[in-house]
Amino acid sequence: MNLLERFSLVKMIVFDLDGVLTNGKVLLLGSEEWIREMDIKDGYAIQAAVKRGIDIVVITGSNSMPVKVRLKKLGVGLFFENVSSKSECLKKIMLEKNLLQNQVLFMGDDLPDLAAFAIVGIKTCPVDAVTEVKQEADFISTKAGGNGCAREIIEKVMKSQGIWEINTETKSL
Amino acid sequence: MNLLERFSLVKMIVFDLDGVLTNGKVLLLGSEEWIREMDIKDGYAIQAAVKRGIDIVVITGSNSMPVKVRLKKLGVGLFFENVSSKSECLKKIMLEKNLLQNQVLFMGDDLPDLAAFAIVGIKTCPVDAVTEVKQEADFISTKAGGNGCAREIIEKVMKSQGIWEINTETKSL
Amino acid sequence: MNLLERFSLVKMIVFDLDGVLTNGKVLLLGSEEWIREMDIKDGYAIQAAVKRGIDIVVITGSNSMPVKVRLKKLGVGLFFENVSSKSECLKKIMLEKNLLQNQVLFMGDDLPDLAAFAIVGIKTCPVDAVTEVKQEADFISTKAGGNGCAREIIEKVMKSQGIWEINTETKSL
Amino acid sequence: MNLLERFSLVKMIVFDLDGVLTNGKVLLLGSEEWIREMDIKDGYAIQAAVKRGIDIVVITGSNSMPVKVRLKKLGVGLFFENVSSKSECLKKIMLEKNLLQNQVLFMGDDLPDLAAFAIVGIKTCPVDAVTEVKQEADFISTKAGGNGCAREIIEKVMKSQGIWEINTETKSL
Repeated sequence: MNLLERFSLVKMIVFDLDGVLTNGKVLLLGSEEWIREMDIKDGYAIQAAVKRGIDIVVITGSNSMPVKVRLKKLGVGLFFENVSSKSECLKKIMLEKNLLQNQVLFMGDDLPDLAAFAIVGIKTCPVDAVTEVKQEADFISTKAGGNGCAREIIEKVMKSQGIWEINTETKSL
Repeated sequence: MNLLERFSLVKMIVFDLDGVLTNGKVLLLGSEEWIREMDIKDGYAIQAAVKRGIDIVVITGSNSMPVKVRLKKLGVGLFFENVSSKSECLKKIMLEKNLLQNQVLFMGDDLPDLAAFAIVGIKTCPVDAVTEVKQEADFISTKAGGNGCAREIIEKVMKSQGIWEINTETKSL
Repeated sequence: MNLLERFSLVKMIVFDLDGVLTNGKVLLLGSEEWIREMDIKDGYAIQAAVKRGIDIVVITGSNSMPVKVRLKKLGVGLFFENVSSKSECLKKIMLEKNLLQNQVLFMGDDLPDLAAFAIVGIKTCPVDAVTEVKQEADFISTKAGGNGCAREIIEKVMKSQGIWEINTETKSL
Repeated sequence: MNLLERFSLVKMIVFDLDGVLTNGKVLLLGSEEWIREMDIKDGYAIQAAVKRGIDIVVITGSNSMPVKVRLKKLGVGLFFENVSSKSECLKKIMLEKNLLQNQVLFMGDDLPDLAAFAIVGIKTCPVDAVTEVKQEADFISTKAGGNGCAREIIEKVMKSQGIWEINTETKSL
């Protein structure tokens, strides 16, 4: 199967947070506030996927209440924080949702994400992922973390399934 | 009519917010605060347009009190938030202001903006707009969202009308 | 006189704020807080200039308490906010300090700064200044606003006077 | 000895803060809050080094409570703030830890860091360090300050000692 055919089977897209849905930076404020930057164009695509029944999941070793709030606003309820083992976390979700390996796509950027790579059918990463991750990836986005890599992969998956549409009623958030 | 002649008819310039007047990013702080970045050189041009009688309007599917405050400081009272249908919103404004299609220019960067494109005389976008928007645009700015695309289009319109002037009394805000 | 000789006469360096000491962006938070970004390497040079008797002055049409606080920490007491006419402000300072035109260097990036250009001996700007300002400038920095243009011009002036030294006791702030 | 052999002797890596662990910018908020940006991929490497017994130390002329908190979370207890003389500070640490010159690597980006360069065995800097620092450096990172220069040097040192491993249990922080 070529990549396009593999995209057409995907029912769940799983994102790492830092360096994938963000630019991999934290702005440090006060004693505990880490400010993260997210992309509005990614937000449009996440909403579009959720509306058409593609599960969007975010798994991170870190934690962030503001990210949780934003993801919820975009329709994403599956946000797993403080995760030590991304593979264990991912296995549980796939079991619960009764998903096969080739129905799950993962996008990550750093070494902890290699554990998730071992579990899923399609391994993807932003263009600024670390070398080891890029070497393992089935698809390397043309975009960097926090700069449209999520939008690009969601579009590719949805287009392969004929469900990407220009919906001018979906708000850009 | 060439583009310059069409610019010379414009009485109202309408901007999308995220990705046009901002860089398309949000910084997430606390539970509800989304910090946006705006450009001071854009601010100078917005003030200049308002002073010379060009209507400046901002329409967004999102909402932001700090943006509202800044726009007001720049002389922009017409800021429409939480808008589901940009075309409906725009139609109402044009009717109220009694403006013809070719007197209105719109700048947007993502799919929801295509609804507004259908209504206005001149369709423009920043250089980092999504492909579908760039394909429809009459004019693609050389600048990216939040990085001078608003300044560029305002200058072009005002120069075509002979009303762009070097006003050293206008504060850069 | 060549530029190097003209630099050697400079006793006061005057900076615009937005787009010169900052990157020309504001981050909008809450109702009134505009967060600006400043450069630590610029900060080192500003301190070095003050220590060696070069007057550093900042004039802006906007206003910012946090910038005022930081400038003070760097040794800069002459911070003029909410200035409508940069030329009037500058004339007063030069009169008070009894400075000749060719003893004053100004760095600005946008149209309001052209008023100050008319008053001073050396006109400079960051590489990302607007075209009209670049056309008038005697020297265009190789660096952008908020990204080292202040450091560059201070180094050039101090080196021309033989007073730039590697002082490892000056803190980077 | 070539650089690889010299890396293999390193027991302590010392970083300057601004322009090395950050991008050299501060975001100014309120009267005293300076927001700094740090890199998550750097954070992974710092944790990895600490876990394998490489001492990580941060010395800065400035001060930052949020940075202190983050460094502690990454396992770094040795954070020296408000340091006037980096050489004195460094000498004390090396004496206490009984470290030889060639067991210590320093990464800095601006003139105050040259004092530390004089003390240590291996002098390194980010690609956007000032010219004087780059001229003295034994190794110039391919990455800029706050954009992976710390990750790169830590990886190089640990790989030279055969202790860099893909640990998917270390959280990206």
